[in-house]
Amino acid sequence: MDISVLFSGGKDSSLSAILLEPFFEVRLITCSFGFRETWKPARDIASELGFPHEILRIDGTILEAACNIAIDDGYPNRAINYIHQCALQRVASEHPVLADGTRRDDRVPMLNLADVQRLEDRCGCMYIRPLLGYGRRAVDALVNVHLEIVEDESERIEKSDYEAELRAIVEERHGPEMVHTIFPEHIQSRVIRRKHDHHTQIPAR
Amino acid sequence: MDISVLFSGGKDSSLSAILLEPFFEVRLITCSFGFRETWKPARDIASELGFPHEILRIDGTILEAACNIAIDDGYPNRAINYIHQCALQRVASEHPVLADGTRRDDRVPMLNLADVQRLEDRCGCMYIRPLLGYGRRAVDALVNVHLEIVEDESERIEKSDYEAELRAIVEERHGPEMVHTIFPEHIQSRVIRRKHDHHTQIPAR
Repeated sequence: MDISVLFSGGKDSSLSAILLEPFFEVRLITCSFGFRETWKPARDIASELGFPHEILRIDGTILEAACNIAIDDGYPNRAINYIHQCALQRVASEHPVLADGTRRDDRVPMLNLADVQRLEDRCGCMYIRPLLGYGRRAVDALVNVHLEIVEDESERIEKSDYEAELRAIVEERHGPEMVHTIFPEHIQSRVIRRKHDHHTQIPAR
Repeated sequence: MDISVLFSGGKDSSLSAILLEPFFEVRLITCSFGFRETWKPARDIASELGFPHEILRIDGTILEAACNIAIDDGYPNRAINYIHQCALQRVASEHPVLADGTRRDDRVPMLNLADVQRLEDRCGCMYIRPLLGYGRRAVDALVNVHLEIVEDESERIEKSDYEAELRAIVEERHGPEMVHTIFPEHIQSRVIRRKHDHHTQIPAR
């Protein structure tokens, strides 16, 4: 069965793809509004991980609307969730089995159960979150086995998540000070390479 | 890394073990209060699946308390959740990385996020739910690839879940009519065998 995994180049979406790999034909999808070419790191990391990768163009008016939400709120959470929901719908319209890197302890982006069921019902898709049942320590342990990563302040990590283009449009429209007002600094990760020296087990026959 | 999966012999706990297999050393654990030998089907199915299996004895007073809860409520949900929480704590005391077959759309047994985090903090364990991010259709699709199952009314399925011993104690203490009053009939599954004719993929090197 084919599965399309929303991919930012971070450790969560990378690990999700790795967990799905023995059971699905995995393809990575990075969404782009075309405002900045923020998808480039994702393309390189996808190649390093060994998965096929696609850029999916999303209507730029969604980014405009998200920018307005972030400015109104003075905080990016609702804007990022809005983009994530639009992105999932867009991906689901072409890829009936889709996944993302949402983890148990995540707050944003995160759909609640009702929104997830609505997405599946409306789009006729299956939306799978392989890491939803994993806490932070379990994710860290698996990442440590399978991935080499760098972590740094979000501003200095070159990633292909929604935040990258949202930051760019806020900066262009409202100046660099507004970016610092709206986006709290937090540690983010980027994948450097996949570790192949562990022993991945093959299911018993 | 070793992982201990709470195992009833049903399709959800079986599929959870299969999803974990490429990434962990999986061992299956069936809890028993020693009131009835309901663990026997689980032992046979574990052997068929190809995983090591253990019976973990749980304090029988927990089953007594659960019986009282079910009688008070006239419905088994709170009693089953109570048993599940006690079983998780018991398993966590010996097995620091544990898992179960809880799915996204399950109602019982199901811990909420606060209870999960409390369990991990208190026991210093990692509690992983591989199917939490999977909806019913996705689970059915994977089960269809990996398992041959039978489904029937819960009363007629020989399984090793908490309901089996809870039914037995309610019947002994309060008679067979009370079992029918408390336990709504629902379709349950039992695994017959693992399908090995699919192509499980090996992660790319």
